[in-house]
Amino acid sequence: MESKQLVYEGKAKKLYKTDDADLLLVQYKNDLTAFNGQKKATEHGKGALNNQISSLIFNVLQTKGIPNHWVKQLSEDKQLVKHTNIIPIEVVVRNVSAGSLAKRLGLSEGDLLSQPIVEFYYKDDELGDPLINEDHIRLLDLVESSVLLNMKELAHQVNLVLIDYFKQCDLRLVDFKLEFGFDSNGELMLSDEISPDTCRLWDIHTNQKLDKDVFRQGIGSVDEAYNVVLERLKGAVSHG
Amino acid sequence: MESKQLVYEGKAKKLYKTDDADLLLVQYKNDLTAFNGQKKATEHGKGALNNQISSLIFNVLQTKGIPNHWVKQLSEDKQLVKHTNIIPIEVVVRNVSAGSLAKRLGLSEGDLLSQPIVEFYYKDDELGDPLINEDHIRLLDLVESSVLLNMKELAHQVNLVLIDYFKQCDLRLVDFKLEFGFDSNGELMLSDEISPDTCRLWDIHTNQKLDKDVFRQGIGSVDEAYNVVLERLKGAVSHG
Ligand SMILES: Nc1ncnc2c1ncn2[C@@H]1O[C@H](COP(=O)(O)OP(=O)(O)O)[C@@H](O)[C@H]1O
Ligand SMILES: Nc1ncnc2c1ncn2[C@@H]1O[C@H](COP(=O)(O)OP(=O)(O)O)[C@@H](O)[C@H]1O
Ligand SMILES: [Mg+2]
Ligand SMILES: [Mg+2]
Repeated sequence: MESKQLVYEGKAKKLYKTDDADLLLVQYKNDLTAFNGQKKATEHGKGALNNQISSLIFNVLQTKGIPNHWVKQLSEDKQLVKHTNIIPIEVVVRNVSAGSLAKRLGLSEGDLLSQPIVEFYYKDDELGDPLINEDHIRLLDLVESSVLLNMKELAHQVNLVLIDYFKQCDLRLVDFKLEFGFDSNGELMLSDEISPDTCRLWDIHTNQKLDKDVFRQGIGSVDEAYNVVLERLKGAVSHG
Repeated sequence: MESKQLVYEGKAKKLYKTDDADLLLVQYKNDLTAFNGQKKATEHGKGALNNQISSLIFNVLQTKGIPNHWVKQLSEDKQLVKHTNIIPIEVVVRNVSAGSLAKRLGLSEGDLLSQPIVEFYYKDDELGDPLINEDHIRLLDLVESSVLLNMKELAHQVNLVLIDYFKQCDLRLVDFKLEFGFDSNGELMLSDEISPDTCRLWDIHTNQKLDKDVFRQGIGSVDEAYNVVLERLKGAVSHG
């Protein structure tokens, strides 16, 4: 599978056409951005780490029957996915208080939530990806209400699978962001990536941060942290 | 009914005990605050205007069967209400794009919304009254889900009554904020105030702002604007 025309370049990935109109080649970039693009850096090796981590995770989700875009890993920093029409809603699932939730509700970081919570954000960089509710989604006509319900249900299912998977790797799944899209048959499926760029992952014993907060807060080596995650996931896969 | 011990002083009203433990005397203040208390002013006569406007509106809602705390107007700036246990959720209903909705979603001010939308804000000055969703409400245990559903339904009903009432006064109801509470029997009821401090009201022909945006944006006399609203409401009542 040879890479062809660049379709889109985002903050973390490049999308290329392939011979098959239904498939895209995704190249994971080494760029890191935070605070709506205000903080930027390039971290050698980050793209390859996230591509491998995301591939392992989507593979697990596939075996658990969660419909998703992932087809296969092609190389260290490239993967093949189904081309989907992305719904501009970021679905965030949270198990532990951190980040904007802690700030919004005045909670302490690290508080275990009595039950997982789901939030919707409008995927719009210019607006700063604002929190929205279901009435806003209806108003903007972002997606049908029945599909939104499916997305929420799938998000909860993904959460259950991933909590378990990460636990096997001595990692606590604090929160994560999902994107969904429709393939050419109109089937709803999980898309985008699941990686330390889009999850909060803490060491289950020490609470050490092993995700993009290392970059956001400038508290260590991104490469080292993401590498710990990859090595542990690999271990879980070969032992599981 | 003589005013007694001060129970609470908020940004816009003072609450006093009465001889009856189930009733509170509310005195409307002349103070105006905006942008979470950053902009402040005192406007002679504002309290009396809001007390009279809120009394007229709650009286209409009562005749329409919306359960609410209002008992009677006592004087220009005082009214008697049922003492309720306020749920710390501000329920905002919007018919036209303005204020934080326009900002959040990148809409133009004045866009008619295809259907009314409801938003919940966590009533917490320190946190800046953040937008919250139903999962946040469950997490914080602010109110039972079934009651929240009632609040939303009542908010829509209030909207229908008020759109109509204000229309008779040549006023467009752009948006408004409601608070709910439980009385001593545990009955849910509309509480707080409904006034130009808590609504956006535009002249139906000229779109002239006749609400707190006059103060927020420094575009005229608050007293004159609120007085237009009161006079028109009085007219509608005597003719209706
Ligand atoms: N299967 C897919 N088909 C089409 N687009 C996708 C797919 N998966 C993810 N995308 C989109 O790829 C784009 C590039 O990803 P990324 O660099 O993370 O972008 P962003 O800057 O929007 O976060 C994003 O707009 C994302 O929604
Ligand atoms: N019927 C009621 N019983 C008890 N408290 C009420 C009732 N109606 C309104 N309140 C509360 O009265 C307080 C004073 O009102 P206000 O000055 O507007 O306060 P705030 O500064 O919180 O906006 C508010 O906390 C409001 O929620
Ligand atoms: Mg992205
Ligand atoms: Mg108030």
